[in-house]
Amino acid sequence: MKPQPECAACVLRRAVFEANLVDPAKAMEVVKGVLQTLCEKFDETKPSIKVWTAVHRKVYDILGTDDPYKELKRKSNDIAMEMFPLALEYYKKSQDKLRAAELLAIAGNILDFGVSIKDPEDFRRKFQEILKEGIYHDDTEQLKKYLKGHVVYLTDNCGEIVFDKILIRELRKYVDKITLLVRGKPILSDATIEDVYYVGLHKEVDEVKTTGIFAVGVDLDIVPPEIKELLYSADLIIAKGMGNYEALSETDLRPIVYMLRTKCDPVARDMGLPRDVNVVKLYPP
Amino acid sequence: MKPQPECAACVLRRAVFEANLVDPAKAMEVVKGVLQTLCEKFDETKPSIKVWTAVHRKVYDILGTDDPYKELKRKSNDIAMEMFPLALEYYKKSQDKLRAAELLAIAGNILDFGVSIKDPEDFRRKFQEILKEGIYHDDTEQLKKYLKGHVVYLTDNCGEIVFDKILIRELRKYVDKITLLVRGKPILSDATIEDVYYVGLHKEVDEVKTTGIFAVGVDLDIVPPEIKELLYSADLIIAKGMGNYEALSETDLRPIVYMLRTKCDPVARDMGLPRDVNVVKLYPP
Repeated sequence: MKPQPECAACVLRRAVFEANLVDPAKAMEVVKGVLQTLCEKFDETKPSIKVWTAVHRKVYDILGTDDPYKELKRKSNDIAMEMFPLALEYYKKSQDKLRAAELLAIAGNILDFGVSIKDPEDFRRKFQEILKEGIYHDDTEQLKKYLKGHVVYLTDNCGEIVFDKILIRELRKYVDKITLLVRGKPILSDATIEDVYYVGLHKEVDEVKTTGIFAVGVDLDIVPPEIKELLYSADLIIAKGMGNYEALSETDLRPIVYMLRTKCDPVARDMGLPRDVNVVKLYPP
Repeated sequence: MKPQPECAACVLRRAVFEANLVDPAKAMEVVKGVLQTLCEKFDETKPSIKVWTAVHRKVYDILGTDDPYKELKRKSNDIAMEMFPLALEYYKKSQDKLRAAELLAIAGNILDFGVSIKDPEDFRRKFQEILKEGIYHDDTEQLKKYLKGHVVYLTDNCGEIVFDKILIRELRKYVDKITLLVRGKPILSDATIEDVYYVGLHKEVDEVKTTGIFAVGVDLDIVPPEIKELLYSADLIIAKGMGNYEALSETDLRPIVYMLRTKCDPVARDMGLPRDVNVVKLYPP
């Protein structure tokens, strides 16, 4: 995906949010740094993730931190683990296990403090609402023919990875091997390998790999060759969340299924879908 | 007031809103133009209105328009005139006429499509809510001693100026002369002299003057000498809305009373008040 007009304001808001998490006194310096980065790089011809990665690199450098979200991520994981029994009950009671597991994994995608939700109570309420909404764009039927062999599962946020457990357990009924691919370095509220071990998701998969890099989503231009090889050799890629969509929507990786909630207009527009809906979208369709 | 960290994202959102009103295909060009302007001018040492004025100049030039808000402003004036009888009834039924008139003039301040409200129904609902809330910071008692002689009344948005009528009629009970000061050129959804005549506000005052310039609020560094003279000779300045506060909060114009709703965190913080409250704040207190 390419940057769209609304994205500049959004990434600036996010940068202020990060400054306020770490050192509010540096917020003006952060904003000026981000403006400089955007002046150099914000362009409708560049892959959007490269611009966002450069912005967050700049912000983290100014703030002198390698992870402004550290505490929030821990909190997200804890809240999600607290909610897990309820989610599991929902799954067990559902007739259509695969769709129920997909929907839970998508609902977990709203667990990003400061973007979609304000506090744990807000999360619980929205999580229930999302389960009621169901999957708006649903390629689950077409997806089934690709559910075999080796699946590479690209995670997104902390907290969300707890709900991924249920989907991964369900996938086990269909596939031979599941590799989890997580971010190589802390960026935004995305899960790293430490989070996977913290919530115990490593026990559900055959292997856990990291991209090895600091990047929004998965930047195929800079990941190590073995990660590229892993992705191109998979029988199916499951990509969670908008960052992974932005990163991979213009690559030739196939088959790939995006599971996400359209939390902003640019991503919704790019996918040809409304905003604020739950999506299981397969390429090729 | 000086620019604050959140302001950069806000003015970018506003620029995209303006592009979408006129020519959505130019939105990326507009955003890139605004980013360049912000890179040059966004600074915590500069008066904020100078930065916003430069940004909107840039946006209007790229869009090739001198007024992206033309239709929305007409719509705001029309909706406000439709609501006027209800507002007048509220005023007539009120015991405390001055406070009722102030509150109506502040409630009119939310009539800015795309910022606070979505559609006419939304406006009617919020207008009623604001009347119920009352005035959170209320210097009306202290204000009374300045209500005499010559008052200069600085208007803000279209639509809002319709509700200013009631306050101006009430002020007539106290003062000898009222001069209305409006923007010299169309900027944002602010009222110009054409709007004043359109809604008939000119009939309620002794004279209508314009700043003669394209600027957010009133930029004392560039207004003609006679406007500066007018402001410094007034017995009281009544300044409506956040733009006028941003423009004048660091000048030595006294006495001045700001009547506004704190619609954003930076202005609320600068005034030492919560966000989303109705304010009648006098300097000196």
